[in-house]
Amino acid sequence: MLSADRDAAPASALRMWDADVASRALGMELEELGDGYARVRMTVTDAMVNGHGLCHGGYVFMLADSAFALACNTEGPTTVAAACDIAFVAPVRLGDELVAEGRERTRFGRSGIFDVTVRRGDAVVAEFRGHSRTLGT
Amino acid sequence: MLSADRDAAPASALRMWDADVASRALGMELEELGDGYARVRMTVTDAMVNGHGLCHGGYVFMLADSAFALACNTEGPTTVAAACDIAFVAPVRLGDELVAEGRERTRFGRSGIFDVTVRRGDAVVAEFRGHSRTLGT
Amino acid sequence: MLSADRDAAPASALRMWDADVASRALGMELEELGDGYARVRMTVTDAMVNGHGLCHGGYVFMLADSAFALACNTEGPTTVAAACDIAFVAPVRLGDELVAEGRERTRFGRSGIFDVTVRRGDAVVAEFRGHSRTLGT
Amino acid sequence: MLSADRDAAPASALRMWDADVASRALGMELEELGDGYARVRMTVTDAMVNGHGLCHGGYVFMLADSAFALACNTEGPTTVAAACDIAFVAPVRLGDELVAEGRERTRFGRSGIFDVTVRRGDAVVAEFRGHSRTLGT
Repeated sequence: MLSADRDAAPASALRMWDADVASRALGMELEELGDGYARVRMTVTDAMVNGHGLCHGGYVFMLADSAFALACNTEGPTTVAAACDIAFVAPVRLGDELVAEGRERTRFGRSGIFDVTVRRGDAVVAEFRGHSRTLGT
Repeated sequence: MLSADRDAAPASALRMWDADVASRALGMELEELGDGYARVRMTVTDAMVNGHGLCHGGYVFMLADSAFALACNTEGPTTVAAACDIAFVAPVRLGDELVAEGRERTRFGRSGIFDVTVRRGDAVVAEFRGHSRTLGT
Repeated sequence: MLSADRDAAPASALRMWDADVASRALGMELEELGDGYARVRMTVTDAMVNGHGLCHGGYVFMLADSAFALACNTEGPTTVAAACDIAFVAPVRLGDELVAEGRERTRFGRSGIFDVTVRRGDAVVAEFRGHSRTLGT
Repeated sequence: MLSADRDAAPASALRMWDADVASRALGMELEELGDGYARVRMTVTDAMVNGHGLCHGGYVFMLADSAFALACNTEGPTTVAAACDIAFVAPVRLGDELVAEGRERTRFGRSGIFDVTVRRGDAVVAEFRGHSRTLGT
């Protein structure tokens, strides 16, 4: 993300991202942050390939989960994942460039539901839904 | 797994595991394999810590997903994950030693449902359910 | 639905609806049908109240499921629910008028993912996601 | 349930069941209640058949949901469904006699996870997982 964009981005989510060693170690790049919204990019490397010669679903999950974590922390108080589900729509291979877009669907009390779509170009490769929980004040 | 145990383990799942660079790169150890069953161990390292100082849910997912992938490939034909869900039951921290146990719940046609419980000692830290799909004959 | 609207609606979904005794017995009204889209209305009656004095989640599920079934049958070949999940966002009470809107999210091979939001006025009361499977050739 | 069995059953779940007009209107019979456990039976009637000549998935859900609600209320404080998912494993038809068995999987804080299997004889027809939330004291 350009520093100009960083200035306008929600501080709570940015702080979380800056401290998120795990996501950056996987080469994830934060592309955009907005209210209840985040877009993250990742390229599939050798280390992410599983026993079927395909990208381990866990890495696709991790990309989606990062977009979810960012999107649900754009409003301030620390918010964590309570539960998530993912459907694997198309196989992902070495070298594929994936983009995950997370978007708030609804919020109620301390809970929230966020949808994340993971795409390679225009093709959807996974659909993820995350349930968030905001930690007590 | 001891080599004696390897001899008795389902060959299809073992082959998959041997080719699974991603899971071993995370330090996962296969402890036991049986019919529709797998147990895998992983220690939480620095690289797995996220922005809240906790283990990134994605790594807990990946451990559960590996136990699922192994369990659903113990019967022969190549079987992949179609969809998964995970509930995060307790926080996981740096140094925690996690054990994931995956077990077949039901099979129907080319589909299967597997449950994976992730524990630290006796405490459950995550419950995972995976839906598998066996690839064409 | 007005007969003028019926003329423009996808025939496959309409036929299914006309044969769906169960949904009509619950007083559901089909309000709109489009490509991968359906909107259905239902009022909560005495018979739908559960042991906590609230609408049984099963009836909210059934309304969402009907919108899902309609939306995923708008394209022709018979399509059934393979799996669904629902999150209950707000309590629903006797007399509440609920509207479920189902919308295709993605399709791949014989599978599809549809999202259904159930609202009372502007307030979301449940979020549902359905996984569909199109039958034989 | 025989009155002898009622005497030994958890009072909180029994009270809930006695007030649950909806479940009894569908002909559900409570067969057994224990700690974190419930078994409920239901026969598929004409009114439960959907547009494909099969039992509406919503009624299978409702049966599973009732077993879940009972099982998660066996320990006292009022507990409600927060979210549920169901996989439809085999078609269900008019006249089928279904039995749903719900069992606690894990509890943490005010949350719980319960698994419900719905069977026709020995054959599994649906697998359900419910997430419960105990209401504040």
